[in-house]
Amino acid sequence: MLPKPSIEVCFTPKLFEYRLTTENYIVVIVDILRATSAICSAFQNGAEGIIPVAKVEDAVEYKKKGFLVAGERNGVVIEGADFGNSPFNFTAKNVKGKTIALTTTNGTQAIEMSKSAESIVIGAFSNITPLTEWLSLQQKNVVILCAGWKYKFNLEDSVFAGALTERLLDTGKFITDCDSAMAALDLWAAAQANLLAYIRKSSHFARLQKMGLDNCIPWCLEMDTTHVLPLLKNGVLKNELQI
Amino acid sequence: MLPKPSIEVCFTPKLFEYRLTTENYIVVIVDILRATSAICSAFQNGAEGIIPVAKVEDAVEYKKKGFLVAGERNGVVIEGADFGNSPFNFTAKNVKGKTIALTTTNGTQAIEMSKSAESIVIGAFSNITPLTEWLSLQQKNVVILCAGWKYKFNLEDSVFAGALTERLLDTGKFITDCDSAMAALDLWAAAQANLLAYIRKSSHFARLQKMGLDNCIPWCLEMDTTHVLPLLKNGVLKNELQI
Repeated sequence: MLPKPSIEVCFTPKLFEYRLTTENYIVVIVDILRATSAICSAFQNGAEGIIPVAKVEDAVEYKKKGFLVAGERNGVVIEGADFGNSPFNFTAKNVKGKTIALTTTNGTQAIEMSKSAESIVIGAFSNITPLTEWLSLQQKNVVILCAGWKYKFNLEDSVFAGALTERLLDTGKFITDCDSAMAALDLWAAAQANLLAYIRKSSHFARLQKMGLDNCIPWCLEMDTTHVLPLLKNGVLKNELQI
Repeated sequence: MLPKPSIEVCFTPKLFEYRLTTENYIVVIVDILRATSAICSAFQNGAEGIIPVAKVEDAVEYKKKGFLVAGERNGVVIEGADFGNSPFNFTAKNVKGKTIALTTTNGTQAIEMSKSAESIVIGAFSNITPLTEWLSLQQKNVVILCAGWKYKFNLEDSVFAGALTERLLDTGKFITDCDSAMAALDLWAAAQANLLAYIRKSSHFARLQKMGLDNCIPWCLEMDTTHVLPLLKNGVLKNELQI
């Protein structure tokens, strides 16, 4: 019998290079507030593809080529973008059948740095069930990479890492001996009874609230509002669950 | 009224450079298994001073000059050292009145990198009460710097960071809006009812057990076994509570 694949959690992109898992692994990118929640929303509403770009300049180039561009820095929509990264912007009217170039403060950088993985997928509370199901079929190690906030630890991504770790362990197909994964499980245990109240104390909640961008937070923390599995293929995210 | 000083937690030395607190701050170095626990033990048993050295070569130089040398890498005593960094080695017989050069896998590197702070002190469960009392008198921001394991997050240092954060907040003299500090509080809440059982699941426990170095772990997790406040002065740790 093959050994069970492992689960490892990196609390920020800065810790990714120190992970123990370097072979046969899938990276799950997590940026709950708001990039990965927005990506799931876009695919749920029929987006054709999403091109993650790290730099604002690259996003502007895509705009010139006629792509829809979504992007922000520190919560502010970048000049020339069609909209920012609130999941509520990615409506069917806006995105159906379209390919979008997306750049965000933390999320796309995390995607950029994990390109050595066998697969890169997008995780959020909104797609936790299809994500768990898909990962449990791959027989590969899983590295959950929290985008964090400017390389710092953040609560919302770490709590999600705990929720996903719990779901994956519950399948019986994974093991973990990662201290970060164990801590994430405890954070999820502390948060799950009232996730919104828990995240209310986070620094990012305060930051978004201050900018009037907090209206989408309850949606970002809701489970299973989308049935999508955004997977990176040749630099473009596609919904793997689409036929 | 002056604003209350803040508490910030860095889960690994790799995240220290991304801290928000850069002025008027004290760093508390934490390496529960085993460096900072050992340092407290040494001072409790009458050591005169401890010189933290990052490199093995530097420790060897101190040996040549006649200093007592304690050091290890990955739990193995380095060649030429008098002993490794189990707190049980720092007996009165071994250390009373002596100055010791100490190098460890994670702890001394953390000290090295935080030299820009106004003060650097050593924290462990064994000195949590005198540490809390001393910090609450300083009117300075506190950055709790977990040594971690080879730049990775570890459970035991993070749980201690939570315990110390709770004690400091309980004085009413501090505030925090640091996500890591909030997470550490939750980890401490999960762990405190049975700290040893909690730390048993950590990767470092398994590592030390495998090497037969786990006999000192219960002591390292016990509160208030020492009444010391190791403070760095001109490159040498001295017990601030000694007259």
